[in-house]
Amino acid sequence: MRRTVFMSEMSWIEYRERVATEGAVVLLPVGALEQHGPHLPLGTDAILATEMARRAAERLDGVVAPPLTYGYKSQPRTGGGNHFCGTTSLDGGTLTATVHDLIREFARHGARRIAVIDGHYENQMFLTEGIDLAIRDARAVGPAGLRVLKMRYCETIRPETLARIFPHGFPGLDLEHAGVLETALMLHLFPDRVDMGQVPNDPPAAPPPYDVYPTDTSWIPPTGVLSPAKTATAEIGRLLADECVELVVRSLEAAFPSSGALAPGRRAASAPAVATRPPHT
Amino acid sequence: MRRTVFMSEMSWIEYRERVATEGAVVLLPVGALEQHGPHLPLGTDAILATEMARRAAERLDGVVAPPLTYGYKSQPRTGGGNHFCGTTSLDGGTLTATVHDLIREFARHGARRIAVIDGHYENQMFLTEGIDLAIRDARAVGPAGLRVLKMRYCETIRPETLARIFPHGFPGLDLEHAGVLETALMLHLFPDRVDMGQVPNDPPAAPPPYDVYPTDTSWIPPTGVLSPAKTATAEIGRLLADECVELVVRSLEAAFPSSGALAPGRRAASAPAVATRPPHT
Amino acid sequence: MRRTVFMSEMSWIEYRERVATEGAVVLLPVGALEQHGPHLPLGTDAILATEMARRAAERLDGVVAPPLTYGYKSQPRTGGGNHFCGTTSLDGGTLTATVHDLIREFARHGARRIAVIDGHYENQMFLTEGIDLAIRDARAVGPAGLRVLKMRYCETIRPETLARIFPHGFPGLDLEHAGVLETALMLHLFPDRVDMGQVPNDPPAAPPPYDVYPTDTSWIPPTGVLSPAKTATAEIGRLLADECVELVVRSLEAAFPSSGALAPGRRAASAPAVATRPPHT
Amino acid sequence: MRRTVFMSEMSWIEYRERVATEGAVVLLPVGALEQHGPHLPLGTDAILATEMARRAAERLDGVVAPPLTYGYKSQPRTGGGNHFCGTTSLDGGTLTATVHDLIREFARHGARRIAVIDGHYENQMFLTEGIDLAIRDARAVGPAGLRVLKMRYCETIRPETLARIFPHGFPGLDLEHAGVLETALMLHLFPDRVDMGQVPNDPPAAPPPYDVYPTDTSWIPPTGVLSPAKTATAEIGRLLADECVELVVRSLEAAFPSSGALAPGRRAASAPAVATRPPHT
Amino acid sequence: MRRTVFMSEMSWIEYRERVATEGAVVLLPVGALEQHGPHLPLGTDAILATEMARRAAERLDGVVAPPLTYGYKSQPRTGGGNHFCGTTSLDGGTLTATVHDLIREFARHGARRIAVIDGHYENQMFLTEGIDLAIRDARAVGPAGLRVLKMRYCETIRPETLARIFPHGFPGLDLEHAGVLETALMLHLFPDRVDMGQVPNDPPAAPPPYDVYPTDTSWIPPTGVLSPAKTATAEIGRLLADECVELVVRSLEAAFPSSGALAPGRRAASAPAVATRPPHT
Amino acid sequence: MRRTVFMSEMSWIEYRERVATEGAVVLLPVGALEQHGPHLPLGTDAILATEMARRAAERLDGVVAPPLTYGYKSQPRTGGGNHFCGTTSLDGGTLTATVHDLIREFARHGARRIAVIDGHYENQMFLTEGIDLAIRDARAVGPAGLRVLKMRYCETIRPETLARIFPHGFPGLDLEHAGVLETALMLHLFPDRVDMGQVPNDPPAAPPPYDVYPTDTSWIPPTGVLSPAKTATAEIGRLLADECVELVVRSLEAAFPSSGALAPGRRAASAPAVATRPPHT
Repeated sequence: MRRTVFMSEMSWIEYRERVATEGAVVLLPVGALEQHGPHLPLGTDAILATEMARRAAERLDGVVAPPLTYGYKSQPRTGGGNHFCGTTSLDGGTLTATVHDLIREFARHGARRIAVIDGHYENQMFLTEGIDLAIRDARAVGPAGLRVLKMRYCETIRPETLARIFPHGFPGLDLEHAGVLETALMLHLFPDRVDMGQVPNDPPAAPPPYDVYPTDTSWIPPTGVLSPAKTATAEIGRLLADECVELVVRSLEAAFPSSGALAPGRRAASAPAVATRPPHT
Repeated sequence: MRRTVFMSEMSWIEYRERVATEGAVVLLPVGALEQHGPHLPLGTDAILATEMARRAAERLDGVVAPPLTYGYKSQPRTGGGNHFCGTTSLDGGTLTATVHDLIREFARHGARRIAVIDGHYENQMFLTEGIDLAIRDARAVGPAGLRVLKMRYCETIRPETLARIFPHGFPGLDLEHAGVLETALMLHLFPDRVDMGQVPNDPPAAPPPYDVYPTDTSWIPPTGVLSPAKTATAEIGRLLADECVELVVRSLEAAFPSSGALAPGRRAASAPAVATRPPHT
Repeated sequence: MRRTVFMSEMSWIEYRERVATEGAVVLLPVGALEQHGPHLPLGTDAILATEMARRAAERLDGVVAPPLTYGYKSQPRTGGGNHFCGTTSLDGGTLTATVHDLIREFARHGARRIAVIDGHYENQMFLTEGIDLAIRDARAVGPAGLRVLKMRYCETIRPETLARIFPHGFPGLDLEHAGVLETALMLHLFPDRVDMGQVPNDPPAAPPPYDVYPTDTSWIPPTGVLSPAKTATAEIGRLLADECVELVVRSLEAAFPSSGALAPGRRAASAPAVATRPPHT
Repeated sequence: MRRTVFMSEMSWIEYRERVATEGAVVLLPVGALEQHGPHLPLGTDAILATEMARRAAERLDGVVAPPLTYGYKSQPRTGGGNHFCGTTSLDGGTLTATVHDLIREFARHGARRIAVIDGHYENQMFLTEGIDLAIRDARAVGPAGLRVLKMRYCETIRPETLARIFPHGFPGLDLEHAGVLETALMLHLFPDRVDMGQVPNDPPAAPPPYDVYPTDTSWIPPTGVLSPAKTATAEIGRLLADECVELVVRSLEAAFPSSGALAPGRRAASAPAVATRPPHT
Repeated sequence: MRRTVFMSEMSWIEYRERVATEGAVVLLPVGALEQHGPHLPLGTDAILATEMARRAAERLDGVVAPPLTYGYKSQPRTGGGNHFCGTTSLDGGTLTATVHDLIREFARHGARRIAVIDGHYENQMFLTEGIDLAIRDARAVGPAGLRVLKMRYCETIRPETLARIFPHGFPGLDLEHAGVLETALMLHLFPDRVDMGQVPNDPPAAPPPYDVYPTDTSWIPPTGVLSPAKTATAEIGRLLADECVELVVRSLEAAFPSSGALAPGRRAASAPAVATRPPHT
Repeated sequence: MRRTVFMSEMSWIEYRERVATEGAVVLLPVGALEQHGPHLPLGTDAILATEMARRAAERLDGVVAPPLTYGYKSQPRTGGGNHFCGTTSLDGGTLTATVHDLIREFARHGARRIAVIDGHYENQMFLTEGIDLAIRDARAVGPAGLRVLKMRYCETIRPETLARIFPHGFPGLDLEHAGVLETALMLHLFPDRVDMGQVPNDPPAAPPPYDVYPTDTSWIPPTGVLSPAKTATAEIGRLLADECVELVVRSLEAAFPSSGALAPGRRAASAPAVATRPPHT
């Protein structure tokens, strides 16, 4: 079998060697199946989170578990709302239970360093709860030493990067749904999954400072794009991808300092960071 | 964007056209992340279920939703048991809730014909429960006309096929975990994910007619392979893949008889059934 | 009070003596309340599972806990489907929680050897999940040494027995719902609960190799009998009952090898294996 | 098959005739598996609730569903506490879910008049919650007209009866656990299940006006008997049984006034109220 | 900051000093938001439970956690029923989970003596279940020594007190909903929250000895008052308040005997038991 | 009884008049019991959310339901983390279930306009989920027209206000836990609940851009204050309080436009917006 960072492609013998023996970090990407306008695919969040996790894993000798491709319900002010056709979401308790179960299992395998890499804003607190419940178990009955990191792959973007990407001012991360950032990342990483001819001309959404349920659909452009994406380029995507991967790698190194297996470059020679096709899931 | 049957690769506009307007079947593959011996990858069940769903969808103009890549706990007599490193399972309630949530969402999108295609035996009853809860909701409050099919892609294999594959007698589907059938399918479909040099020489497992918890690991070969896989070939895999896809296609045609969108071949010209790489998930 | 194997008929003092002091196996029969055609009672599954458990308990000095008389939803291909009037089922999570709770309690009493004896196919995985959750607790916080066996009382039937019962070929265990096997067992054990004059003449059901929800009732004979039962006799029932009890006894002896209390015959003198009336539940 | 009021002994055809066509009340007895001192069996609560339900059903042409034989956790001040060996209890949520599921099913069968007859004090509020959830569903999505009665079979006892039974004053229903009332009922109804020689001489328990968890076992006589039972006689039991059955019958007649099927005596000729053996469950 | 027994008014530093260092009892008042006739506020149960807890805490140097102001569903025979406008109730599982969570948290803080002081009859068993689940956790994984008391603040009232209050006979605690007792307590403690001019003239409710769902509203006076309250006076309220507080204080002293911090009067000098305004919640 | 906006202080007759007849908005404040440094009380979040809701309700003739005083687990980067003594949190599912239950009840009362006013950042998504589940029910089975607003009372603060408060730059809302904003609000509204002498001199926390579980306590100042609060004044508090109340009022007017009952000032004459003491809860 080809060498791989993807757990689903390894035999259990290889996984055991990597995780139980060598102490590799297990990275769990989490996305969503959610409208991303007419120009990006429904799976964008999982595709990007998986690719960021893959790149970080290549550099840190980590293992990437199968992504959670269904996430929590899209909210109007950050993802357009869950009323869109195609947006396919889990109840909060389901997502929490899934994360709880998976951390329990990875810990049973011997993993003590687990990183949940999120690509969908609305998932955050349900991931937190799933992790907290797993850590509560671990505190009560073990295993000792279990440590879980959680972050968004683009948790922060440097001001100078934003200034380069948005010379006329950054509309804010909340509205960056199917906007310049995600479009640029997809153009750089999976260009055949983007249709720039479909990018709408809508002005940015201007939702009020509160939520209303059921969703007031008049707040949201009918295309589902919350901020203009026309200026996205593959070059911007490259810039962002590098910065995001760097952020993930540095975060993992800082959070899991004690382990030799995390030393960057240790297996770099045999694991070139070539782009892969997006997963179908 | 390339034409695709994979929902995660479509824009929401395209998905809406296919499902809400044309009435396409939504296929949900379900697998597991489970040891499959030293020669097959952990993701085998999801990989195969997804590929069978893809092929059926190509023939029937269906849409393949992202697979559920984590399944219910492996049982000793059918999958070696859940004590293996790498086998990563959900609690039953979590799997049930996931299926319940997803069917609710597909139905909200307008889907009235949903097919759950399973590749992992132990999932069966939890899928049934998730479907039953969703159908109960639908009966109470709609939508009317929702219909869900559930099957294993290899629910039956014709005796003549089994006779060709197992000239010395079929050990039974229960023991066909990482055995000739799955190995042959992977050799045919994703040969670079199989390492035939690692196929163990163990005799078939001979578990007693009951289960014991915690698992009595002495019942199970340490490799996790429940029946010999040495005789698997890509040619057997081709035979099986064709029969399984045929079974899925005919089942969907029988279960969802009323719809023109299911007419086989309608879009066949533009959607050649070429093999794809396995999903990473 | 009369000597009894039934826990509900013992005082707590007697139960404590048997289970906590002598280490008796606790057997938990599980059935269902489910249509069994016009000739068998709704309670057939619990009645038979309880009787098999009783006989095994007589031979092994075990204790039979009150049966679970409500089971998981009948499925079309194995029990006719849950749409029948009279079929009264629990959600999967309810059955799982019940088993989880009961094992926790038996273990608190001091039981370390518990056998779940099932008489209803659809229960299997929810019993497994309940047991698994209880074992997970036990692994985390004790008690040490807890061991739970799970089986169907007719998990296997010897080919020579089947050949005697079905000289024209065995239709398969899936279709044996209210068919020859259950009818014969009831004729042998509780003849006043069978009305052979009501056995229908329907041919065996021929369901397709998939499930559809809501149930397609055209698959199922309106009587609910999935295979012809006309040839059932009390003599066949005797043959089967003996084989099933033998299977249960041998399984318990094999699964719980270490305990003197399981030595067959130890209390046989004082506990003659007379047939009892079926429980009302 | 013999004529019976027990649902588990009927064929589904007979049950359908009784419930869906004739509108019979479905009675669900609920008990507990709980220590009842050294002289009464663990199953006392379910045995008595089932017998009271049977007698009421004989008079009202009702149907008795299989009893719930496991109840909510025994409390120190009303049942001695859940720390006793043999006392085998469900979590509150499990009992609630069971009742919710069963009412949903009986209503699906066509039952519109359901009576939950309780024999274990601690069950009360969890039965209430299960009923409330089922009624909430019914209010939202039907069936219309569903009505559920809930009572303890000894919800009230007439002062003149108490005066006859307790010439020296009634210690209170809370302490009547394995005391005179239950012992007398069992002596009358199932004398071979009582061992009067084992009745302890303990004075009545005198618990404080609060609960403490974990249970303070010093409050409770080690035998588990909360008030003296020596004066129990079969004659007292007859008196009580008659009064309790009368109470249940009158309550059902009052709560379900509209139905001819409830007219007392309609089938009395063919259903003599002979005592039956206690169910094994 | 003013000295206070209310946890919500303390800084975490002060709370830590009181609970973790000095071992103070944490009192959790529980009420309900429930109709109390036209003359008492919806929050009566929480207001009274909180005030009783406050007074006991003043005497015992305890800490009063924020009350649970929403309780379990009002029942017709004890609170008029949950169909009233304004009565705002939780599902049983929600109340149980809340209590479970809070005890876990107080125990994490170092509290080993927790008292749940209830003011709403229908809460009782769901509080019991929440406590039991927390104690089960504590038994399994700690902390050791955790002890939880549960009581109603008026769990018992002395016969001589009742005789003084009800010279013509006590109608029973069940009917004391918005009757003399609660009205008198409110007149004494929070007179500006009572409108005696609105007390209805209805005779006492006379519900039958069973429950029916949905509620039969003909049983209940339309005002929601189950027994006449006209004779309530502030003087009766003073009598009752003193007796109830005494009961709570003596119960806590008896249940938690070992601790010096509970010595009555230790901080009495600095914490005069002056009446406070009712909490808004 | 005094006129009040607090539901717990109204009789059910008055509440019914306000909500069912006049269509008043029901405001549900949500807080947390969470460390707020040595200078602010544990109940700060609920105290402030309740006061903002009260003021908005005075202006809009709304009704303020009892606040939820226990919230979701404090997170290190926004509240210091849940490891602090005194921080007392619910599991996410418990908070979600509570909100789901309460909205169901308010809607049953006739409320069609409900506003959830949050004062604790970590609650947000669990409130969203509770609201979503209630709205899902309402969509399925009614009531029609139910609309729920959710906001933080300080969801936005105007840049000119921030510039006045933080002349040297705003550290960001995430770090504003027990910092200038909350301290100033408390100084203005409930000065006797603040101890400015205890405000620590710690520099602002500088947590990394990810979370780690269990919490890395080295990130957080031991006092629990995430940013300096020394410069807080009552005057800043007045400025903020006015802006926050204005924001809440305008949001409710915008979200619930159709109702006369929301006309500002309609009852202003009889309901002066005087400050109240903080609730004890």
